[in-house]
Amino acid sequence: VRGLWLEGGRLAVRDDLPEPEAGPGEAVVRVRLAGVCGTDLELVHGYYPFAGVPGHEFVGEVAAAPGAEDWVGRRVVGEINAACGSCPTCVRGDRTHCERRTVLGIKDRHGAFAERLALPLANLHPVPEGLPDEAAVFVEPLAAALRIQEQVRIGPGDRVLVLGPGRLGRLVARSLAPSGCTLEVAGRREAAALAPRSADVVVDCTGSPQGLALARRAVRPRGTVVLKSTYHGEAALNLSPVVVDELTLVGSRCGPFPAALAALAEGRVAVRDLIAGRYPLVEAPAAFAHAAGPGVLKILVEP
Amino acid sequence: VRGLWLEGGRLAVRDDLPEPEAGPGEAVVRVRLAGVCGTDLELVHGYYPFAGVPGHEFVGEVAAAPGAEDWVGRRVVGEINAACGSCPTCVRGDRTHCERRTVLGIKDRHGAFAERLALPLANLHPVPEGLPDEAAVFVEPLAAALRIQEQVRIGPGDRVLVLGPGRLGRLVARSLAPSGCTLEVAGRREAAALAPRSADVVVDCTGSPQGLALARRAVRPRGTVVLKSTYHGEAALNLSPVVVDELTLVGSRCGPFPAALAALAEGRVAVRDLIAGRYPLVEAPAAFAHAAGPGVLKILVEP
Repeated sequence: VRGLWLEGGRLAVRDDLPEPEAGPGEAVVRVRLAGVCGTDLELVHGYYPFAGVPGHEFVGEVAAAPGAEDWVGRRVVGEINAACGSCPTCVRGDRTHCERRTVLGIKDRHGAFAERLALPLANLHPVPEGLPDEAAVFVEPLAAALRIQEQVRIGPGDRVLVLGPGRLGRLVARSLAPSGCTLEVAGRREAAALAPRSADVVVDCTGSPQGLALARRAVRPRGTVVLKSTYHGEAALNLSPVVVDELTLVGSRCGPFPAALAALAEGRVAVRDLIAGRYPLVEAPAAFAHAAGPGVLKILVEP
Repeated sequence: VRGLWLEGGRLAVRDDLPEPEAGPGEAVVRVRLAGVCGTDLELVHGYYPFAGVPGHEFVGEVAAAPGAEDWVGRRVVGEINAACGSCPTCVRGDRTHCERRTVLGIKDRHGAFAERLALPLANLHPVPEGLPDEAAVFVEPLAAALRIQEQVRIGPGDRVLVLGPGRLGRLVARSLAPSGCTLEVAGRREAAALAPRSADVVVDCTGSPQGLALARRAVRPRGTVVLKSTYHGEAALNLSPVVVDELTLVGSRCGPFPAALAALAEGRVAVRDLIAGRYPLVEAPAAFAHAAGPGVLKILVEP
């Protein structure tokens, strides 16, 4: 199988990768289109000691599903956390936090920058016929954006600031717009010029300690800061202001696929104009280099 | 007026302090009993550059209330944040976070370790006749403890860990007990032996970076850590686990006086056995020294 191999911070396209195998209850999916995410770029820089095929945003077609052949041929997107189903966390219903989880293209499971991948059937969601691949490939990041509204009540009149006008920040802003909130999207430079202590909710999509500092500056007393992207390394955080201002900090990760599929299918969130480039799988390293450029939006890879 | 004077980290009892004056809408209160809090000890160590009379936990008697003479003679407790009433934060209703606030014994307002203090009438709450001074003096810290339940939903079946078995931790635990949650109170040593990633809510009353690290270890994915005391200096916090585990961190400060008065008056929270010592005002420095000892509970000062 052909795929992009990451090891020791190096990316290389290889043709000799082992064929993904469908474990019990799993399917093999032929990847049609995959997206490059900030986390992929972080993996290259050693954010998590992952060696293997990266990639966790994809749309594909079921190629094999032993014992569940009716799935074969269906166009699907897939949730990235493969859960054990039996640990205390799974039993409580928090399957995306399973203690023994593997995560597509991130932890102990080869990912989507390859011709084929394997995922549990329980993770797959059929894609409605009218939804093109170029929109369906955004289901995973849009679901992550929609997760915010599962965690924080946001409605008309709320002043929400999204920090980081990149691929994630724009998707977050678009996912929040239908709530009727008063929305502002700012990069670091614009954020420094905003009124301090005025936002009800700040969503930090910068993933940088400087971004967090700006978020703390912008949020009002008793406001909420959503940490929407993982941070590089330690961010020194003075906690006394968090107590004195009674701030709430909320870590936010994977979100609801059905809601994301519905939002895309019903046209409530547009994504096509977020695509900045498209590369064949053999040029995946170039796709990563492109995605790492400043202000570059979504880069897609096509096996 | 006699009072305890703090300046440059030194405490001294002085007899020559200016008489507190009741500004417009304010009252002068004769202090009957005051309590030493961890924040007072922090002030001595320079947590905030305060020079003046410390002390913010008290019960007293209204000595003067220009234009509102019916208050004179009433036994009262008092909220510590004196708000302007007109800044955006006040207008929004978050008066304890007023941008221009003074805070009794903490910021720009002399406090309770003195014969008399001044506070706005709006801050005062009459004490029910049956409630002795020795219980009423706990209204302020108990209100702060009850604030947690305004911020985080805690009910039967929730596993709550209170870190720090000191004067604040015990009060927090007693305030949480009526909720029906499964409650554990632990010091640093016991906390290290607890099952990791198992508590739904951890309330950190240690005010130390080590306490926070233990809280992070003890809380389950998607759980909540309440930061109940101010931290000494910078606490380095690695935020990636907060995102990956989708933790919620909640800063928590001052709370509802009416609820605290009711809990004490109805006997739902016992406090008398938390009193570890009682000193006359002239011996207030010795009271502070006693309160700073390891494991010492509430020390009271009587003008």
